[in-house]
Amino acid sequence: MARPPIGIIYGSKSDRSVMKECRKVLTHFGVRAEEMVASSHRSPAKVREYAVSARERGIKVIIAGAGMAAHLAGTIASETTLPVIGVPLDASLGGLDSLLSTVQMPSGVPVAAVSVGKAGARNAALLAIEIISLEDEKLEKKLVRFREKLRKSSWDEMGL
Amino acid sequence: MARPPIGIIYGSKSDRSVMKECRKVLTHFGVRAEEMVASSHRSPAKVREYAVSARERGIKVIIAGAGMAAHLAGTIASETTLPVIGVPLDASLGGLDSLLSTVQMPSGVPVAAVSVGKAGARNAALLAIEIISLEDEKLEKKLVRFREKLRKSSWDEMGL
Amino acid sequence: MARPPIGIIYGSKSDRSVMKECRKVLTHFGVRAEEMVASSHRSPAKVREYAVSARERGIKVIIAGAGMAAHLAGTIASETTLPVIGVPLDASLGGLDSLLSTVQMPSGVPVAAVSVGKAGARNAALLAIEIISLEDEKLEKKLVRFREKLRKSSWDEMGL
Amino acid sequence: MARPPIGIIYGSKSDRSVMKECRKVLTHFGVRAEEMVASSHRSPAKVREYAVSARERGIKVIIAGAGMAAHLAGTIASETTLPVIGVPLDASLGGLDSLLSTVQMPSGVPVAAVSVGKAGARNAALLAIEIISLEDEKLEKKLVRFREKLRKSSWDEMGL
Amino acid sequence: MARPPIGIIYGSKSDRSVMKECRKVLTHFGVRAEEMVASSHRSPAKVREYAVSARERGIKVIIAGAGMAAHLAGTIASETTLPVIGVPLDASLGGLDSLLSTVQMPSGVPVAAVSVGKAGARNAALLAIEIISLEDEKLEKKLVRFREKLRKSSWDEMGL
Amino acid sequence: MARPPIGIIYGSKSDRSVMKECRKVLTHFGVRAEEMVASSHRSPAKVREYAVSARERGIKVIIAGAGMAAHLAGTIASETTLPVIGVPLDASLGGLDSLLSTVQMPSGVPVAAVSVGKAGARNAALLAIEIISLEDEKLEKKLVRFREKLRKSSWDEMGL
Amino acid sequence: MARPPIGIIYGSKSDRSVMKECRKVLTHFGVRAEEMVASSHRSPAKVREYAVSARERGIKVIIAGAGMAAHLAGTIASETTLPVIGVPLDASLGGLDSLLSTVQMPSGVPVAAVSVGKAGARNAALLAIEIISLEDEKLEKKLVRFREKLRKSSWDEMGL
Amino acid sequence: MARPPIGIIYGSKSDRSVMKECRKVLTHFGVRAEEMVASSHRSPAKVREYAVSARERGIKVIIAGAGMAAHLAGTIASETTLPVIGVPLDASLGGLDSLLSTVQMPSGVPVAAVSVGKAGARNAALLAIEIISLEDEKLEKKLVRFREKLRKSSWDEMGL
Repeated sequence: MARPPIGIIYGSKSDRSVMKECRKVLTHFGVRAEEMVASSHRSPAKVREYAVSARERGIKVIIAGAGMAAHLAGTIASETTLPVIGVPLDASLGGLDSLLSTVQMPSGVPVAAVSVGKAGARNAALLAIEIISLEDEKLEKKLVRFREKLRKSSWDEMGL
Repeated sequence: MARPPIGIIYGSKSDRSVMKECRKVLTHFGVRAEEMVASSHRSPAKVREYAVSARERGIKVIIAGAGMAAHLAGTIASETTLPVIGVPLDASLGGLDSLLSTVQMPSGVPVAAVSVGKAGARNAALLAIEIISLEDEKLEKKLVRFREKLRKSSWDEMGL
Repeated sequence: MARPPIGIIYGSKSDRSVMKECRKVLTHFGVRAEEMVASSHRSPAKVREYAVSARERGIKVIIAGAGMAAHLAGTIASETTLPVIGVPLDASLGGLDSLLSTVQMPSGVPVAAVSVGKAGARNAALLAIEIISLEDEKLEKKLVRFREKLRKSSWDEMGL
Repeated sequence: MARPPIGIIYGSKSDRSVMKECRKVLTHFGVRAEEMVASSHRSPAKVREYAVSARERGIKVIIAGAGMAAHLAGTIASETTLPVIGVPLDASLGGLDSLLSTVQMPSGVPVAAVSVGKAGARNAALLAIEIISLEDEKLEKKLVRFREKLRKSSWDEMGL
Repeated sequence: MARPPIGIIYGSKSDRSVMKECRKVLTHFGVRAEEMVASSHRSPAKVREYAVSARERGIKVIIAGAGMAAHLAGTIASETTLPVIGVPLDASLGGLDSLLSTVQMPSGVPVAAVSVGKAGARNAALLAIEIISLEDEKLEKKLVRFREKLRKSSWDEMGL
Repeated sequence: MARPPIGIIYGSKSDRSVMKECRKVLTHFGVRAEEMVASSHRSPAKVREYAVSARERGIKVIIAGAGMAAHLAGTIASETTLPVIGVPLDASLGGLDSLLSTVQMPSGVPVAAVSVGKAGARNAALLAIEIISLEDEKLEKKLVRFREKLRKSSWDEMGL
Repeated sequence: MARPPIGIIYGSKSDRSVMKECRKVLTHFGVRAEEMVASSHRSPAKVREYAVSARERGIKVIIAGAGMAAHLAGTIASETTLPVIGVPLDASLGGLDSLLSTVQMPSGVPVAAVSVGKAGARNAALLAIEIISLEDEKLEKKLVRFREKLRKSSWDEMGL
Repeated sequence: MARPPIGIIYGSKSDRSVMKECRKVLTHFGVRAEEMVASSHRSPAKVREYAVSARERGIKVIIAGAGMAAHLAGTIASETTLPVIGVPLDASLGGLDSLLSTVQMPSGVPVAAVSVGKAGARNAALLAIEIISLEDEKLEKKLVRFREKLRKSSWDEMGL
């Protein structure tokens, strides 16, 4: 069985209620993902080992969700050359702190930030799928069909 | 000669002073890019045609830079399933307007936002390279070497 | 029967609870409107066709409500020379993201932004009525009477 | 000679350097405007008389530019049923204070807010032209041609 | 019977739940106040007449509470040389819009802004009492005793 | 010779370039003021003694200017029942930090906040004059004449 | 029995629901603390006496929690050379006012600011423990073990 | 010769112009410090090794300065139980991004944030000195004298 191409990581079990939106989208597309709870502040070694070994485990894209001074995506990005997508979670200040902590990376170590909260978790999954569909024609076709369906539906009607 | 895998688009010639940082990074990595000035507000049809035809022209990743109510990346993302990277440019309000306009996309149409301004333009290029290096081992090795050099240097010392 | 002079468009059915305030005001003034749900991100072609054909359908003013990276009003404005009114909806960050995405349009393509949320939906309708009343004396008189009543009442007492 | 259909008003002579962008655009379209310096705080009666008498003087649209606690547009809007366009000027806090003071009008008294600063002054003029072009086919054609030219040019190349 | 030295004015009946904190404090100090609901946007003439006639009616200090683009205090201040205290009410954006609209007055027309919401309504009353106690020794002594009690109590324990 | 009714205090000599606007206005009105440099953080005892003794020295109103975490006005207000006017100075973050630190006082200890920077320094002086003119008819007449002149002039033309 | 090395102070009884997180952490580490309710605005003398006498009472670190224009930590810091930790409490504006009022201290009088709200109250206690553990090897070992446990647990699972 | 008790670390050589304020203060107090340029994003292993080994090298307090998505202080704090002071540097958005990224740490891993920029660099040094002076009476006396001098001087007059 093929190794999952997507890694989902978030800082705390309490983030799961938002980050599960990621998984819903990936499942809809038949894309497998591994999932881990680890915090760049509480368990930095675990995060690091995850990031360093991700490529050789077959991971193509890492999705990292965190709130407040959201360093998770940036910490992972500093340890890998895989694309890292950061989902800012709204734990305080309307999510402005996690958004700025995620997106404002310095020159040299990019993070791909998406929207704050649930919309971000969903879009992180779709962005990851867009990336891996560059070499997967079937998946790309699914994406096109998904967009076609989305043209006529609100997100809630997509059945995700 | 291979077609360029990266498309760079920005709203106005005055954005070039920031967006040329993108090109510098791509050139350093030997990655070719096509470049176009087009505005989602002033020349929406041009933007649309660009977005719709990008995949069949061989483009893998589109980088879009815009300021103020920065709709360029979002407009492109709505017309393609290629990964779209948005660079918020600082034309007013410290770039907060362009950052929020770029990153806060609704569920279904992701944009990968990077930092405001020059750091964002550089990281957009690096993120695009990370994405295409998923299927290009040589490029991935260049990225690893780049990161190694970056460990010992500030950006200004990288010679970019 | 005369064609409706006002077009109301918003990104998602979930925006209706706020945008119906628009309709209430128009109905009070006896001004007809067509209404459509379409998203600049999910269904851009539908939005575009709407915008491009609006003038010839007799539309005088378009009201567009959207949240987050609220591109709807700007997208429509880029495809028509009709006046476009943008209503920023509060889906996140207190509506600051949708406000800035709506109002901060670049030189050349104006959007008329109103308040965030319900007050904005109401004022969008009143602004549209002010515009069409420039050539409709009866409507202008209704506006004057409305203002006179408003002088003595809170909005809730207006019966709208 | 026809009376000017546009009134431009701003709070202080020092606002002229930004507000003259308004005039440039109107002149380009051959649309005449009257112009007045008056402050809702320092000369409220002058502002009021201006607003109350504007319609009978033939004014169709009023453009009001102000900074800081920018009450000018709102004050005018409360005294007329003409469409009022507010241009937030950046005198402090990046213009966030004038933007919020201009756009966040309560239910019943709309102001059409445009971008902060020069882009706003230009777009206010264009929005006013869009409004009066609803009953002026020649002007509407000029607008269409302007947009066509804008498609190929940056604002600076428009010669305004 | 002496005329009340304090005028309290606010934009809408719905503001009463916050503004009644003002009255509670004044009553505690035995200071009489007149109270009026009037909006600078909906009923500007009423506001103006109130402001213009306040001094001759014996008013010493005017307290004005408003939300959103809170022009009420500024409008009154522009029509009187009495001290005007502005209470920003939180109707949207956490009250940041009403705070900036109230406090950022241009040179020449001061408003004394206090905190957003209930704390502001209370402090507006206390500030007004401080002002009139400059010429009322008994009242000044009450203020001193109030402060002494406050040293040992939270606000909730003050019985107001 | 009468004792000065106004006390001006600010945290650092570097604040003088802004706070001297206060003095200019007071001098124009012939109102005397004492002036002191003292910081609530560096020299709290000096601030306290100043505040505690102000009333008996004949001071009626205290104007306090400070930047960053601007505690000066609040510290003074906690030690006196005289009206205290706070001028937020812009030393960082566009003055948002000093504005919020000055205005957001808790229930029981009011500060009258005015605009950030020079406009605030001028308005603090005018507000203080408004307060003492409640019992000084000549001064009140000067204020009325000042306002009349202001109606026809920008601040720069007032010769202050 | 040894004197407590930590002083906890906060402005109002209503802050206790957040500040008790401080105490929970200290108790877990067996570190004693004295606790006082005192407000820099309502009871400044009490705060001052507390700060001035703290070192000689054996206090090593003071933790101060306050909301709005949160001057408590700064006021204490100005009266002692002990390390002062400021906890911004969220009473309004998402805590942005208390955060900026706490952290933006001028050169010369430092405050150590931590996160807004409960996370801040917990981290204030941990930071205080880190400081006193510099000379307490046993406590340092407890900290190391705490971090080890934290690596495998969310905060809620720590039993605090 | 005694080992330096303070470690200063910052992300880039370009941060030196601000962070040297730290060194100036420490030198004034005769407190030695080691200094290193290392970035949590570009050279995470170097940062980590520094943090992990700091205590055994005799370091008591670590001062970390960084801009944008300022993760440096948080990254260090996650690897040590020494007190870590974070100095937010203003590279963009007025320093709001670095301030929030530094201060908003999650429960369990504290960072002591100080002011943005130069004032922060100075206060970080003073806070570090306050911490080590808990066990160094001579240093504590120097601190007291420094504060006494500060009472009569602005920072610029301190000769630092």
